[in-house]
Amino acid sequence: MSNIVKINQSNLDAALLGIALERTAPDSLQAQLTEGLRHAILNDPGTSGARLPASRKLAGELSVSRTTVQIAYDQLISEGYLTSRRGSGTFVADNLPHLSPPVTKTAGLRPEAQPWRPFHTGVPDQALFPHQSWARHLERAWRAPENALLARPDPMGWYPLRQAIADHLSAWRGLPCDPGQVLITSGAWEAFELICRALLPGGSAVALEDPGWSPLREVLDACGARACPLRTDHEGLNPADIPTGVAAAIVTPSRHYPTGATMPLARRAALLDWAQQTGGLVVEDDYDSEFRYKGHPLPSLAGLDGLRHCIYIGSFSKLLSPALRIGYAVLPQTQVDPARHHLARTGTRASLIPQPALASFMTSGEFATHLRRMRRIYARRQEYLLSELAPLSDLLDLSPDPAGMHLCARLTPKLAGRITDRHIAARAQERGVFLRALSSHSVLPDPPQGLLLGYAGHDEAALGAAAHTLARLLRDIA
Amino acid sequence: MSNIVKINQSNLDAALLGIALERTAPDSLQAQLTEGLRHAILNDPGTSGARLPASRKLAGELSVSRTTVQIAYDQLISEGYLTSRRGSGTFVADNLPHLSPPVTKTAGLRPEAQPWRPFHTGVPDQALFPHQSWARHLERAWRAPENALLARPDPMGWYPLRQAIADHLSAWRGLPCDPGQVLITSGAWEAFELICRALLPGGSAVALEDPGWSPLREVLDACGARACPLRTDHEGLNPADIPTGVAAAIVTPSRHYPTGATMPLARRAALLDWAQQTGGLVVEDDYDSEFRYKGHPLPSLAGLDGLRHCIYIGSFSKLLSPALRIGYAVLPQTQVDPARHHLARTGTRASLIPQPALASFMTSGEFATHLRRMRRIYARRQEYLLSELAPLSDLLDLSPDPAGMHLCARLTPKLAGRITDRHIAARAQERGVFLRALSSHSVLPDPPQGLLLGYAGHDEAALGAAAHTLARLLRDIA
Repeated sequence: MSNIVKINQSNLDAALLGIALERTAPDSLQAQLTEGLRHAILNDPGTSGARLPASRKLAGELSVSRTTVQIAYDQLISEGYLTSRRGSGTFVADNLPHLSPPVTKTAGLRPEAQPWRPFHTGVPDQALFPHQSWARHLERAWRAPENALLARPDPMGWYPLRQAIADHLSAWRGLPCDPGQVLITSGAWEAFELICRALLPGGSAVALEDPGWSPLREVLDACGARACPLRTDHEGLNPADIPTGVAAAIVTPSRHYPTGATMPLARRAALLDWAQQTGGLVVEDDYDSEFRYKGHPLPSLAGLDGLRHCIYIGSFSKLLSPALRIGYAVLPQTQVDPARHHLARTGTRASLIPQPALASFMTSGEFATHLRRMRRIYARRQEYLLSELAPLSDLLDLSPDPAGMHLCARLTPKLAGRITDRHIAARAQERGVFLRALSSHSVLPDPPQGLLLGYAGHDEAALGAAAHTLARLLRDIA
Repeated sequence: MSNIVKINQSNLDAALLGIALERTAPDSLQAQLTEGLRHAILNDPGTSGARLPASRKLAGELSVSRTTVQIAYDQLISEGYLTSRRGSGTFVADNLPHLSPPVTKTAGLRPEAQPWRPFHTGVPDQALFPHQSWARHLERAWRAPENALLARPDPMGWYPLRQAIADHLSAWRGLPCDPGQVLITSGAWEAFELICRALLPGGSAVALEDPGWSPLREVLDACGARACPLRTDHEGLNPADIPTGVAAAIVTPSRHYPTGATMPLARRAALLDWAQQTGGLVVEDDYDSEFRYKGHPLPSLAGLDGLRHCIYIGSFSKLLSPALRIGYAVLPQTQVDPARHHLARTGTRASLIPQPALASFMTSGEFATHLRRMRRIYARRQEYLLSELAPLSDLLDLSPDPAGMHLCARLTPKLAGRITDRHIAARAQERGVFLRALSSHSVLPDPPQGLLLGYAGHDEAALGAAAHTLARLLRDIA
């Protein structure tokens, strides 16, 4: 016997001594023994080739039956940790190179929750959400789920939810549609991804608003589409600017993100005209139009179009919670089959768990009641924020916005001459106030300068404190 | 006045007569009037340019206040549907080209639910799931949600769920890990996508098992990675076959999908060796290893590796429901920051709604109890299916499988000489029996021929009937 084998042997013997079996543990004795042996072998490459005690001997040492030991040996032989040599016994396999000991588990510290603070944009005030009622809807949907909830999931989503969304869109957004045209997604990202992958030819050029929702460029990039950013003005994107060869245009006509501009009817008509004449696709991202405080919301572009060339995208992130991860797309009839075909291959991302609860929350009328309540509260918050910031009118160009969840304050020439919006945002963040710079939503040169002030998700006390901090910061600068 | 304008005028007058206001409707009178006018204009391009009645006149006809009419006119002027000409009144805008009437909503018929039937693979028997208890967990988590649930969501997922998963993996899969390494996804697709996009260089070559899980090739394709399929044998993928230049290998070592082969320790060691020597990444897809009926599950490859070069992927689809859309990935410490950075940009897809409920379902012990119960039931079902199909031993090569949720039956030479597995699958489907052909999981030439028989999600009665149909079909062929 060589020296090395001797060393191995003593390593193994030492490790075996460390195996303690607990008769009261939930795992069986043979499972504990198997695990203990495996652990000993893995933890010490020096046991390679060592001979195990005869099963009778180890059984005696551990006060277990010989069968228990034999089963553990057999299991480890079948796994390749041990080998059996006829007549000479059982050995640790000697072909276990480069095995590292398993990591030892560290006690993970739960990270502290990061609350939403002013002026985070696009978040509802979840403290005002009717949680009890929502929880009841969840419980009712799942305590004895109807058969269809346990059947093969429709990749387009839970039908009653699609129906509730169709009813909602007809009533609120002037968009009558068939539930069959509604597709449930895990949010806008998935909807855009589906459009690029399933409904547009690979490598398509897609017109985007600039400034606009920055992640859109990432989505297009990930899908191999080509972003074609177009500078918007006070009426949003100008369809006359769309270059030849563009396959789709993604727009926010109800309320341009992030400036809040509304696209007037003439441009809407021109955009639909463009779609009809070029065969292009218009994608309407209607991200927060439920929150309109003055007048009625403009009917959706997709409704005006009669859902022929236009896809409508909505989400519940702004209405209920960004963590819900439920959004939807409404497709022209001609696009339903391609979308369904794509989803059947790739599967859906949206969890079914919230869908039946959301459907009953909508059909019970609680959803609309909640929206109306939030509308009153958000309108007051906007008013409050405007009054708090009114003394800054020489620095920030602010006016009431008839809709939305944030204000877009342009820098006046006096302020813009001294600092960029991004620098203001960085300095505000140091003081615990979250601002998004308008210019960070642009890729085109000479972007407009401004600050996005989300107010919807924050109560008056928080808004007042943040406005105060912002005012001091801007006065320091100017 | 030209003839055309006259026609327009009569069209508009007719449309106005059709406007009926309901005092008991939930919408205000002015909202109803605005909507009615908008509808009239959109539905008939022939109204273009027509003059609207003076507000006083229309108010009288409709028995509403003049203010109500004036507000409706103002709203439609601001939307661009109407124009006001000083001194001569209010007109339908004449620049409304190419507007189509909105689609009329059709009464959608709820599609019939498609139940899971034998031999659908990879589905648990949801009828046996403790729905009441699960619904209570959902209700408890959300009726008065803790603050962290309403705070800015961690893109890595709900921490207590990550902790519960880490505990589960340590106990069941020999994979001690820190909750900080666990990332919640909406399923395996998202996990693979994240790996390709965030953790591998663009255009990387990735080794895949062939046969293997077909959607993987789609994921790689969508991410711009290059699939490198390698034929597996009775020990799964052979690391010696991995060509130079491959950046990652995705494997199912516990139970090769779909053949059920277990990768022995020597190959596991060789695979980790490959990773260490080339800097390659090993991705272990452990899709159903919780269901092991004989012996203990092999510890995970990632556990053997000490989570240094190996990512572990799991899911709750097979344990609870495919509609849950909750899966996870466990990352080496070095990959946590790149993954988090990627997710912060793209957002997460996994809904937060099920996460706290799943966490408490796991920590309460109900999850493990359910798994153990399902293990006993699935084991019986496998045994039953094997006994039902035993008379077909001249046509199908079937043997007990110590784990999993489906059997992989190879065609015997006698049967393979007469028909392909895909043809059998097609003819079985005509008879209402769902089979997946083994060869449909391959892209390499001369794929092995077999049938995948999912048994876990189907009770004995359903399995017996399907086995009977299959037997008749195969006897007809042979």
